[in-house]
Amino acid sequence: MRLAVYSRFLEQLQEQGHGTVSSCMIARGTGVTPAQVRKDLAYFGEFGTRGVGYDVEALSGHLKRILGLDRKWPTVLVGAGKLGSALALYEGFLTRGFHIVGVFDIDPDPVGNRFGQLDVLPMERLEEVIQRYGAQIGIITVPANAAQEVGERLVDAGVRAILNFSPYVLNLPEGIIVRHVDFTLHLETLTFNLVYKKEEFKTF
Amino acid sequence: MRLAVYSRFLEQLQEQGHGTVSSCMIARGTGVTPAQVRKDLAYFGEFGTRGVGYDVEALSGHLKRILGLDRKWPTVLVGAGKLGSALALYEGFLTRGFHIVGVFDIDPDPVGNRFGQLDVLPMERLEEVIQRYGAQIGIITVPANAAQEVGERLVDAGVRAILNFSPYVLNLPEGIIVRHVDFTLHLETLTFNLVYKKEEFKTF
Repeated sequence: MRLAVYSRFLEQLQEQGHGTVSSCMIARGTGVTPAQVRKDLAYFGEFGTRGVGYDVEALSGHLKRILGLDRKWPTVLVGAGKLGSALALYEGFLTRGFHIVGVFDIDPDPVGNRFGQLDVLPMERLEEVIQRYGAQIGIITVPANAAQEVGERLVDAGVRAILNFSPYVLNLPEGIIVRHVDFTLHLETLTFNLVYKKEEFKTF
Repeated sequence: MRLAVYSRFLEQLQEQGHGTVSSCMIARGTGVTPAQVRKDLAYFGEFGTRGVGYDVEALSGHLKRILGLDRKWPTVLVGAGKLGSALALYEGFLTRGFHIVGVFDIDPDPVGNRFGQLDVLPMERLEEVIQRYGAQIGIITVPANAAQEVGERLVDAGVRAILNFSPYVLNLPEGIIVRHVDFTLHLETLTFNLVYKKEEFKTF
């Protein structure tokens, strides 16, 4: 996650016309300690020059390759509610290589609705679309009570990594990469810190 | 974040009628090691009984207090686009104590639209609403180029913790708690792990 944040920050620097950047500057911009920045980047090779820092463009390119952003990732989305539609139309995905190739819903009601270039498809077509595009990534935006079943179907059809927006903690086979994005969980880390009155605490 | 995930998992156990739970079971359900679970929980007091485990209801209640979920948190949201509307209407927030008390937009276009019980308000009313409700939490769902300005206005009006959904890394005064929720960042942690072919890797 830190690498992805560094990558985003380097893009901001590129846009602002910076040629080089120090680990301290990356640290300040991303809320991480300079030592952690140096350690994280050194783990993937020697990118910086002592006393000069990092070349913004080169480091940005390296990080994108490490993050797998130098290729396209066909992605399917299950759950065509408000959140699903916000995500399906989210332009940031496309610019980072994530192509939503299918939007599905368990409920027949939204089937046929149009999200940008895509029609919402019935679940019967999930396996076909995943296999046609070789989609390895699935996004789940269904209610909690449907999440486990949807997760299992995605995995059975060939998906290997899941971004789970439902408030249900999925139980999937070993080797499947699951990332749980529960907005309430995020808010709870804020209130935890408000209650415990920590000083600056930036997390991503 | 782990505490929030334990709390969510304990709620699932309560719904399923479990009376006690071991640290190993919490570990399996949340993708954390049993040692980490015991360490995290011990940090906040002695909740478990050796050989018996934890009382699900009592532990769940303790965690909610630790996470600040035994109170109400008036929250404002800026950015009335698709994502903003999905979040403003997200029922999960209310059940965990997060009350959206105002929805705002920098663009006059959506002002006056109705999100559930709330009208979208112009930015001119931001300070008034934050102060009336004592809102300490702000949610930002505006585009990247407007995020920094909105963040600063929220902080000036009294907000102390921000959930940032824009793809911009905010730079705010020390002491302000910022959590950055960038969907693309989340996807990038998936592709990083797909590229590096890690074995099971569950994060939250």
